Amino acid sequence: MSDTKNLRVLLAKRPQGAPTAEHFRFEETQLPEPSEGQVLLKILYLSLDPYMRGRMSDAKSYAKPVELGDVMEGGTVAEVVESRSEAFKPGDIVLSHSGWQSFAVADAKGLRKLDPATVPVTTALGIMGMPGFTAYSGLLTIGQPKPGETVAVAAASGAVGSAVGQIARIKGARAVGIAGGPEKCAFMRDELGFDAVVDHKAADFAERLAAACPDGIDVYFENVGGHVWDAVMPLLNEFARVPVCGLIAQYNTPEAKEADRLPALMRSVLTRSLSIRGFIQREFMDQRRQFYTDMSEWIASDRVRYREDIVDGLRNAPEAFKGLLEGRNFGKLIIKVA
Amino acid sequence: MSDTKNLRVLLAKRPQGAPTAEHFRFEETQLPEPSEGQVLLKILYLSLDPYMRGRMSDAKSYAKPVELGDVMEGGTVAEVVESRSEAFKPGDIVLSHSGWQSFAVADAKGLRKLDPATVPVTTALGIMGMPGFTAYSGLLTIGQPKPGETVAVAAASGAVGSAVGQIARIKGARAVGIAGGPEKCAFMRDELGFDAVVDHKAADFAERLAAACPDGIDVYFENVGGHVWDAVMPLLNEFARVPVCGLIAQYNTPEAKEADRLPALMRSVLTRSLSIRGFIQREFMDQRRQFYTDMSEWIASDRVRYREDIVDGLRNAPEAFKGLLEGRNFGKLIIKVA
Repeated sequence: MSDTKNLRVLLAKRPQGAPTAEHFRFEETQLPEPSEGQVLLKILYLSLDPYMRGRMSDAKSYAKPVELGDVMEGGTVAEVVESRSEAFKPGDIVLSHSGWQSFAVADAKGLRKLDPATVPVTTALGIMGMPGFTAYSGLLTIGQPKPGETVAVAAASGAVGSAVGQIARIKGARAVGIAGGPEKCAFMRDELGFDAVVDHKAADFAERLAAACPDGIDVYFENVGGHVWDAVMPLLNEFARVPVCGLIAQYNTPEAKEADRLPALMRSVLTRSLSIRGFIQREFMDQRRQFYTDMSEWIASDRVRYREDIVDGLRNAPEAFKGLLEGRNFGKLIIKVA
Repeated sequence: MSDTKNLRVLLAKRPQGAPTAEHFRFEETQLPEPSEGQVLLKILYLSLDPYMRGRMSDAKSYAKPVELGDVMEGGTVAEVVESRSEAFKPGDIVLSHSGWQSFAVADAKGLRKLDPATVPVTTALGIMGMPGFTAYSGLLTIGQPKPGETVAVAAASGAVGSAVGQIARIKGARAVGIAGGPEKCAFMRDELGFDAVVDHKAADFAERLAAACPDGIDVYFENVGGHVWDAVMPLLNEFARVPVCGLIAQYNTPEAKEADRLPALMRSVLTRSLSIRGFIQREFMDQRRQFYTDMSEWIASDRVRYREDIVDGLRNAPEAFKGLLEGRNFGKLIIKVA
């Protein structure tokens, strides 16, 4: 391996609006050496997720930003190539948080071994990983859908939204999916089994959404914000629950309107006893085991399906990430690194 | 009683901004006659509460508006003067919802008998009634203050706010009260035992509030909205809870700003895992018995104190109500009718 280099993607500059090529820098370095208790990993797959836009900014948030000149962070599936830990041997496939690079050293105790024989290892970055668990914990713990209720979710062909809709249906609720474009809408309806789908790019989106929710909305799983929220808010029923796990539409630009929408929001909260609750999945870590059990069963019995959008090559990560924020991906976005 | 007239205050016109004399109309009518199962009531006290501003408007809300030409609604303490029910006899004092008038007929089954020997009957409209229960249920069920946490509340010398602060202290939390003017602030500190008080009329209100909350705010009991909210929001800690039971500052005018505050609010909800939850106390009716028990004990042991602002004469109700919305009352506002 002595000639092999580590390709790393560094944060070069903090974006104000949309991140572009100039905000990243590629660098090739020597392979790192594992110390006692560590392993050397060859990264096979890198997960790209909307939260990474937050890490590029130094605005106060729930996690520290990536420093300028540091490797962009991210979840990864990797192969152990050298081990100085008894827990792993070369050839093992693990889930790690090694970021945007082709090799990494990691402490053995932070890794989870994956079994390629059960489900494809890429699912550890999607439906069986952080996005799937975000959907599961936020929907069930905060959203608490009841049989017959209406659950609406945006970015509904994506990693989190597709799981939200399918879990809602498993719990007996009616799932209304919102996404951009006819192809994604058809997939949600025909493959994922959503009860209704609405294209947010339609000129009459708000009217279509209202028509798709004749009994209003009891749970809105908020992961996009922006103009979808404006269409959803009038439809929220009394005692509606709004788990908030993301606001992808306002990550690049705050999408402020000319009018101040805060008074109307608070009035709706008051007059309809709404509940709006932000969350990060790690808050619910004690549900993680149950999640693995439930989701494995649901996938095995074809009650939950998933779609992955795999892009080849780490050098394409910046452009793929930009597309993710613009909704150009179709399914869970993953970079094939090795 | 045949010469006695019933003085009634009717909704004459729906206000756009602040309600004034022109929005009400006084009328004298014959006394109504109770049917079987009903009683004739002489109203002793009428409660004036901020929610009544909502009933004057026909905007969609959690309760139906008062119709034009109808008696303004409201909670009342009354004396039974004639009974056609076995449950009540003349001279009984009851809690009813008879509205802004001097006499009323009511179904016996909607009344609760009060015992003047235990606590003053006016408390049934305040600390032992709807406002006290709003504070109790919203703070304990939604706010869930833990020992050592900071609970902030506005309109803190008023019917709901004063109870919120005192219950928070009973539960081991630190109570920070916000009110307008030095007299109310002194009362909250010296009589009610708030740990810190802040005058929202101060030019440097936001700085003073921040100084009064060195560990941030874990529960903000929202009953006013407006510029207090703007000062509170940056201080909310991760996992802070915001029960919303009123927005008095925006009832007359929406207080919209030039800038759209919604994106910043939603970003805070997301990055700090905030919980914002509107509620109406009737949602928690199953806690009502426990509330009576707890609050009676707390009053008897001087752990909860209350202040009433009693205005004499039904003809003064419109002006007193206008003052309530402007924060001119000092304590629970009650009209002495008889």
